[in-house]
Amino acid sequence: MNNFTFYSPTYFVFGKNTEKEAGHYVKRFGGSKVLIHYGGGSAVRSGLIDRVKASLDQEGITYVELGGVLPNPRSGLVYQGIDLCRREGVDFILAVGGGSAIDSAKAIAAGVKYEGDFWDFYEGKPVIEALKVGTVLTIAAAGSEGSGDTVITKEEGMLKRGAGGEALRPVFSILNPELTQSLPAYQTACGAADIMAHVFERYFTNTKEVEITDRLCEAVLLTMIKEVPRVMADPNNYEARANIMWAGMVAHNNSVGVGRDQDWASHGIEHELSALYDVAHGAGLAVIFPAWMTYVMHHDMNRFAQLAVRLWGCHMNYANPEETAKEGIKRLKEFFTSIGLPINFRELGAREEDIPFMVENMRLGENGTAGSFVPLKNEDIDSIYRLAL
Amino acid sequence: MNNFTFYSPTYFVFGKNTEKEAGHYVKRFGGSKVLIHYGGGSAVRSGLIDRVKASLDQEGITYVELGGVLPNPRSGLVYQGIDLCRREGVDFILAVGGGSAIDSAKAIAAGVKYEGDFWDFYEGKPVIEALKVGTVLTIAAAGSEGSGDTVITKEEGMLKRGAGGEALRPVFSILNPELTQSLPAYQTACGAADIMAHVFERYFTNTKEVEITDRLCEAVLLTMIKEVPRVMADPNNYEARANIMWAGMVAHNNSVGVGRDQDWASHGIEHELSALYDVAHGAGLAVIFPAWMTYVMHHDMNRFAQLAVRLWGCHMNYANPEETAKEGIKRLKEFFTSIGLPINFRELGAREEDIPFMVENMRLGENGTAGSFVPLKNEDIDSIYRLAL
Repeated sequence: MNNFTFYSPTYFVFGKNTEKEAGHYVKRFGGSKVLIHYGGGSAVRSGLIDRVKASLDQEGITYVELGGVLPNPRSGLVYQGIDLCRREGVDFILAVGGGSAIDSAKAIAAGVKYEGDFWDFYEGKPVIEALKVGTVLTIAAAGSEGSGDTVITKEEGMLKRGAGGEALRPVFSILNPELTQSLPAYQTACGAADIMAHVFERYFTNTKEVEITDRLCEAVLLTMIKEVPRVMADPNNYEARANIMWAGMVAHNNSVGVGRDQDWASHGIEHELSALYDVAHGAGLAVIFPAWMTYVMHHDMNRFAQLAVRLWGCHMNYANPEETAKEGIKRLKEFFTSIGLPINFRELGAREEDIPFMVENMRLGENGTAGSFVPLKNEDIDSIYRLAL
Repeated sequence: MNNFTFYSPTYFVFGKNTEKEAGHYVKRFGGSKVLIHYGGGSAVRSGLIDRVKASLDQEGITYVELGGVLPNPRSGLVYQGIDLCRREGVDFILAVGGGSAIDSAKAIAAGVKYEGDFWDFYEGKPVIEALKVGTVLTIAAAGSEGSGDTVITKEEGMLKRGAGGEALRPVFSILNPELTQSLPAYQTACGAADIMAHVFERYFTNTKEVEITDRLCEAVLLTMIKEVPRVMADPNNYEARANIMWAGMVAHNNSVGVGRDQDWASHGIEHELSALYDVAHGAGLAVIFPAWMTYVMHHDMNRFAQLAVRLWGCHMNYANPEETAKEGIKRLKEFFTSIGLPINFRELGAREEDIPFMVENMRLGENGTAGSFVPLKNEDIDSIYRLAL
């Protein structure tokens, strides 16, 4: 097991009606002037923003608002948010929405405390200081409510890049599964793929014998393959929604990833898809992951066989573990299809002729690589895109 | 799923040689005058205390020492520690040892900030304020390194009671699995039973459909039944020790217990054993848990069958789930026996004639109950002790 540190100091508040406690927690964590940051009109139309405002009013906390965060959130709105916070003396950012609103909030939080261009953080500069961020989560997907990560797309060249740091972990996150019940089925499915992908990125490792982390990863995946079909059958199934929502947090606060190398190549490969076609990140992951698995499985066949057995209940073929490994990948594709996700370029609406551009846009250069399970060069990534056609 | 909050803000530092970072983390979390609190001579003889001191010296942090914590730590030393901290102006307590040293440190930390008798907290008063506590863990067992809980025994009447609160969560915990390699096999096994018991207390619940928590519980248990026999075969197996040590933290920081009622009757029932006979808590749990399971399984046979199938790989007898449930309990007893633990009064050295005293000492009164899965009255507890004869 690799040496590691693990620090997840977010205060999680989970369950029905918990959005009404937003004001209480902003106050507890020292906020006095808040930016409420959110996406489209659904949070307004549903009355959620009003309920959050009422809870801030109740605590005597003042606020300004900035809506309009898009899926694959853009740098333009981040600059606006930074200006607004500075002008208004905001000391706390409350993101209300899914991963996009939260990631945008984190970018603003880091940018307000930094004299340079906030995009520097997305080019590799570590985030040391940021305004405090709290969240009211409305989509189970990104895990941004419990992580120190953020992904932003720069309009110029549609560059999609990530940043991170302990300072960006939300001080509190409010998770009310009821808020996810109105999500369209497709968005729910995309969220599920995102959650499962966060586990896969941690599961495929060259660090041997980290059984506890393997088992915790499998715990999240087993929960997903039980609960997601139940939500597809009945969008108002609170218990299933609750399991998925908490699984989404667990999948990405790194509790299922400690003590081992992690991969993350597939996320980078997917980012090019969602940046170019503006498709949902989860849909892109459902396309890329089976292709990535197929391309790299020979590197550690038994690990793929283990997942096939433990997740899908496949029978281990001891004489030919490759058959078991392939069966596991097949089952994953069938699962994605069954919940309405695309599993190839055609279904996603991506084009073969864009592959060279996407490979180029990852900017690995001639000798650079992505991922650690199997470090991938440009030609490998090209092959993975083609396996996904 | 029940509404819940989850807050685990401890900074975990895990791996080889990490005890040398103790000074760094004391400083990071604001300590300037430290009480080093530890148990017997082994931490001194092994050089561990010297390494910790050297790391404090390196950061210019001064300290005083208080050793002598016993297994099942006593109130007498807590009073001494409180006096010492007040006299010396200590602002940070660094526990070096297992659950006993950490629990004693927490009691001192709460007591220093409180004008009354610290024992009030163990009679039910909530802990609101405490000195900061850090830990260097040497035994994988109690999970106190990641929890806000503490258990102390009052010499007068050998009353063993627990207290808890967010203020008692360690601000950092250093976990070096190498430090556990020198533990005698019996102590390692007792720690394993303690870890597994922390999961069982959370697994047996009347809250339905919390699949994520079920699966996370099973992840810890599956890890234990794989890794503990490997450590018994080779005490220096670092990878197995590492898996167990992290599993011990995960088992008790409540990440495997959220969203549902928890039981905790068996811990109370066991405390009377370890208080009366001064046996290891884990050994007592290995005796009590199979008896408790046997006594309550009819309340929810399918839950016991689920554990039997998922943990031990038993084949589900759909026509007669009781057979599967019983098979699971049998496998648990065989497991405890295989790692050298007692599974009944005789093997533990407990006496049938003390049962009425132990039942009485739980102080439930005529109508009081213990536990929530099946609320147990005095006569039920009497029966459970007798099932363990």
